[in-house]
Amino acid sequence: MSLKREKQTYMLFMLSQKTHDIILMKMDIEKVFQMKGGIGENSYSKNSSLQKRAADKVKHIITAAMEQMYVEKRPNSIGIADLGCSTGPNTLSNIKQLVHTVLLHPHPDPEPEFRVFLNDLPTNDFNTLFQSLPDFYTQLNKHRIYISAYPGSFYGRLFPDHCLHFIYSSNCLHWLSKVPAGIYDEQGFSINKKSIYISERSTQEVSLAYLKQFQHDFSLFLKSRSQELVCGGRMVLILLGRTGSHHADRGNSVFWEIMYRSLSTMVDEGEIDEEKLESYEVHFYAPSKEELEDEVRKEGSFKLDVLEMFENENENDIDADMSYGTAVAKTVRSIQESMLANHFGDSILDKLFQHYATLLDQELAAANDHINSITTVLVLTKL
Amino acid sequence: MSLKREKQTYMLFMLSQKTHDIILMKMDIEKVFQMKGGIGENSYSKNSSLQKRAADKVKHIITAAMEQMYVEKRPNSIGIADLGCSTGPNTLSNIKQLVHTVLLHPHPDPEPEFRVFLNDLPTNDFNTLFQSLPDFYTQLNKHRIYISAYPGSFYGRLFPDHCLHFIYSSNCLHWLSKVPAGIYDEQGFSINKKSIYISERSTQEVSLAYLKQFQHDFSLFLKSRSQELVCGGRMVLILLGRTGSHHADRGNSVFWEIMYRSLSTMVDEGEIDEEKLESYEVHFYAPSKEELEDEVRKEGSFKLDVLEMFENENENDIDADMSYGTAVAKTVRSIQESMLANHFGDSILDKLFQHYATLLDQELAAANDHINSITTVLVLTKL
Repeated sequence: MSLKREKQTYMLFMLSQKTHDIILMKMDIEKVFQMKGGIGENSYSKNSSLQKRAADKVKHIITAAMEQMYVEKRPNSIGIADLGCSTGPNTLSNIKQLVHTVLLHPHPDPEPEFRVFLNDLPTNDFNTLFQSLPDFYTQLNKHRIYISAYPGSFYGRLFPDHCLHFIYSSNCLHWLSKVPAGIYDEQGFSINKKSIYISERSTQEVSLAYLKQFQHDFSLFLKSRSQELVCGGRMVLILLGRTGSHHADRGNSVFWEIMYRSLSTMVDEGEIDEEKLESYEVHFYAPSKEELEDEVRKEGSFKLDVLEMFENENENDIDADMSYGTAVAKTVRSIQESMLANHFGDSILDKLFQHYATLLDQELAAANDHINSITTVLVLTKL
Repeated sequence: MSLKREKQTYMLFMLSQKTHDIILMKMDIEKVFQMKGGIGENSYSKNSSLQKRAADKVKHIITAAMEQMYVEKRPNSIGIADLGCSTGPNTLSNIKQLVHTVLLHPHPDPEPEFRVFLNDLPTNDFNTLFQSLPDFYTQLNKHRIYISAYPGSFYGRLFPDHCLHFIYSSNCLHWLSKVPAGIYDEQGFSINKKSIYISERSTQEVSLAYLKQFQHDFSLFLKSRSQELVCGGRMVLILLGRTGSHHADRGNSVFWEIMYRSLSTMVDEGEIDEEKLESYEVHFYAPSKEELEDEVRKEGSFKLDVLEMFENENENDIDADMSYGTAVAKTVRSIQESMLANHFGDSILDKLFQHYATLLDQELAAANDHINSITTVLVLTKL
């Protein structure tokens, strides 16, 4: 597989891995949306090995931020939150890594207590996550670790006042809390015709509506977290971004374009009502460096220590027995199934993801342009 | 329905409502046991209305304990734990009640923050519970309430040091952490022949093994909670008990006897292997007043403020369209299904609970003796 394809793979996994706070008009996402639960072949749990690799790429930044916090504050009881923890094996291995980071430093006896706060939407499959806890506690039985779950949207308060020292969120904040209201006309149809995200065909009105929603959501996120972190606490945020000021960067839009074309094919086949498709919109936004800096400055509770953007690269470890498109479609399905089923009905899913796989394989075979997908990492200190 | 039957109904619901920490030999209960999840006809969630009534009977004691704690301590941030929260509608209504109890008292502005810690085994259906959180938060949106789940066995540490002001546990502590080791012979068969709990046929060896397991478990429970409560914090424990010193009180054993006879009928029918039945034992213990007082005194971290025992009475609101036995069998099934299925296989369940319903109806029709079932309520203050 070419480097270009590998980068596209990475981008897609970054895009798809945690579809947080997506809301469709009239759909109460807190009651609908979920990663494919359980541990079956199509579950999110079994389809998140590449997400682990994505997180591993920024591990040194996360580790450094935790070390700096610990050296400065030396708390006896350390509050750590994972926002958008999801349900796969990555969740608890991230926690283990953070605990070990602290314990590699000189520490008092008894060693610090770790209060771990896992967050995701109430529809997340916490049951599967919890069932791996007894083994996790057995592995770490020498340490004082208390793991809890706080279900809810991170666009608002989640945790008690000033209980956290370290917040970590990987690949969630590119998901908005909802479709911007301005995207819909009075009849409830999207004004973003023939697209489900900002595309080359989208008007400036569409781009601005998305930007405003991002500004509102990210500002609310920062304000909420500022009340939960102690002064000197750190926050590491990993999300997709873009380098240019133009909103319709191909790196972010190509995978939505494939989804739109897959849905469109189903309209042509009479399987999906055209009006249904025209009211469907995804709630993603990849902010630029300047857009992120602006919100941090305006909100005012945090010092921005690090803002790094890097082009995503990825090695391919997808099963050689299936096409690249098929493998990708499987991962996307583990994440988007609940929302698509809620809007279009679950009878369309098998065929939709067959189209998705085929169209993605065709697109990548035909593509001659280079697709840049960008990950942004921010480290913030609570003032 | 007669008063006697009503009392038996109540007893059964008390017995069956939260089968905590039951462990079968070689069965890792933390990975097996669960209330019947979801919200279907046979779910625990739909079969716990009588449990609510049971809790309502001791509401004034719970309320008084919370009031005393609040008046003495006046914390700005109140930690409340529900141990064995299960998954039905009762869970969140209990929390709402405790929050309102505090807020009826004069309090500072801003009003106190409530940190709510829900606990049950990792196999509990937390997903269903979490899905009702968005509506709960909407109802109480004026207040600062942060709800979390801490999955694990309460026979050991669950929460960080000194984070709780109030602990509440309803109808869980009559379940032991495991079958006492002394109940099994070297081949792994129960020495408690022709019984699955202490019965009139049980030897003194059997009774003593159960008592020792209770002493070990309850002592560990008290020690663990003493490290989690602040000084002056309160703990209200509601569990089944017995008034006499004899271990095989009919009030506690009759429902296990019916289950044994139901399983035995399945052996006669060739549906269950006799050896399987002879290795099955339930892990229940109804302590006497003296046994409870002894453990509190020996552990030494708590002052025993209240120990009340009362005979259970209950009004019947069981569906008139089905027999009493059938209605009871349905509730028992919502709780015991996962364990029975793990031990005997799930193909036996439908027939087993048909037998249970029939045998219970027959037993109650034939019974001429009065069955006393006893609930014990303890209020303890952390010294």
